[in-house]
Amino acid sequence: SMSYATQPSSKKLLFRQLFEKESSTYTYLLADASHPDKPALLVDPVDRTVDRDLSLVTDLGLKLVYAINTHVHADHVTGSGLIKTKVPGVKSIISKASKASADILVEAGDKIQFGDLYLEVRATPGHTVGCVTYVTGDGPDQPQPRMAFTGDAVLIRGCGRTDFQGGSSKQLYESVHSQIFTLPKDTFIYPAHDYKGFTVSTVGEEMLYNPRLTKDEETFKSIMENLKLSYPKMIDVAVPANMICGLQDLESKAA
Amino acid sequence: SMSYATQPSSKKLLFRQLFEKESSTYTYLLADASHPDKPALLVDPVDRTVDRDLSLVTDLGLKLVYAINTHVHADHVTGSGLIKTKVPGVKSIISKASKASADILVEAGDKIQFGDLYLEVRATPGHTVGCVTYVTGDGPDQPQPRMAFTGDAVLIRGCGRTDFQGGSSKQLYESVHSQIFTLPKDTFIYPAHDYKGFTVSTVGEEMLYNPRLTKDEETFKSIMENLKLSYPKMIDVAVPANMICGLQDLESKAA
Ligand SMILES: [Fe+2]
Ligand SMILES: [Fe+2]
Repeated sequence: SMSYATQPSSKKLLFRQLFEKESSTYTYLLADASHPDKPALLVDPVDRTVDRDLSLVTDLGLKLVYAINTHVHADHVTGSGLIKTKVPGVKSIISKASKASADILVEAGDKIQFGDLYLEVRATPGHTVGCVTYVTGDGPDQPQPRMAFTGDAVLIRGCGRTDFQGGSSKQLYESVHSQIFTLPKDTFIYPAHDYKGFTVSTVGEEMLYNPRLTKDEETFKSIMENLKLSYPKMIDVAVPANMICGLQDLESKAA
Repeated sequence: SMSYATQPSSKKLLFRQLFEKESSTYTYLLADASHPDKPALLVDPVDRTVDRDLSLVTDLGLKLVYAINTHVHADHVTGSGLIKTKVPGVKSIISKASKASADILVEAGDKIQFGDLYLEVRATPGHTVGCVTYVTGDGPDQPQPRMAFTGDAVLIRGCGRTDFQGGSSKQLYESVHSQIFTLPKDTFIYPAHDYKGFTVSTVGEEMLYNPRLTKDEETFKSIMENLKLSYPKMIDVAVPANMICGLQDLESKAA
């Protein structure tokens, strides 16, 4: 049966969703506002909107500690590198499986702590070989319902393509069904993109209404193999930049 | 001092923010998910995204009862009329002061009930003569913090223009300071538009960081009178359509 979602709620969590129009990317700001330092992190920042994001961090009196990526994006350059040049001490994060470089490389089961809150890392390869989903903690002090930052693994009524960057429709299907659809049904899904103006969904909703992921594995694979998508415009710029978490300009300056 | 926002929380409220890219308009879906009928309303629906909104209403198992407008928009056609043709029984709502026609004309102090939840109507003229702000109820069963749907009265770090549709910078300043900035500081501000990818702010945040509304009244008026904005592209189509809450096609069919 359908689970009805309210809003994620926590006495500690400060949460903001931010949108970058050109690539239709969502960036997420999370902070433990009850902690004296107000430690904060950004999930999937975009280079073009770094100034907006950092000015919000300043206005809210937060201390940014992590710039986190769900995967090596092909459609925009991550803001991680630029953020590191502007806010000393911020550490960039990406999965070890992505083979990209960053200050911290995470694996399934790792916890990313900020104040009393944390994100749990789940391996959800398939869109790319190194895709992970970050899920808020499980416990009475953590936001309820839980929140899953799924990158391009699960989009609202959709999913990321699987035809490049080590993508695999079989692997994506298995990742989503074992790592995301096993979360409580009221878990909020916050994707890396939306192209229709949706901002959030839930596990329960996508299990019922996702037009691709509700199908059996063979049908899913055949859908994904017949999408006939064009080559992404930004990929040749974005992927090399994102493999070093947006530090390409710094490197050329140092050279 | 700064109030730190978490998320609005309620055991009853189902809430979704939806974005229409061409006019950068936010539409809001609210429902009492704990009520057997799951009565729902849409704030500021856009004609172009009605099918998306209604399909979400259906997926979530809600019964849409109201299509509500904060004001007579100049930049897009309201979805109210189209919704009424697609979902029998839905009532359109706008303020009496707007002089537009709709099924229900509301005034300051009116309550719009949906299940056990309600929106309170506050008169916030200035961007247009009939602008209102809808605020979630005050009480233990209502969402906490409160949520204010401010239309174009307060935008995130901005405000609506005041140079047409009976606009008045003096009136807008007074409306915001008497009707919105008097709400609890943790009240969420959900505007009708955002052009930079922000999704939400709070009363406390705008009282500290709004670059226009934090100024004294004379400075505000002088800012507003010197914006030198161009004539809105859609105004000659949108305003007549919105004065009859988007029922223009129905009327021409009936003629
Ligand atoms: Fe991607
Ligand atoms: Fe407007």
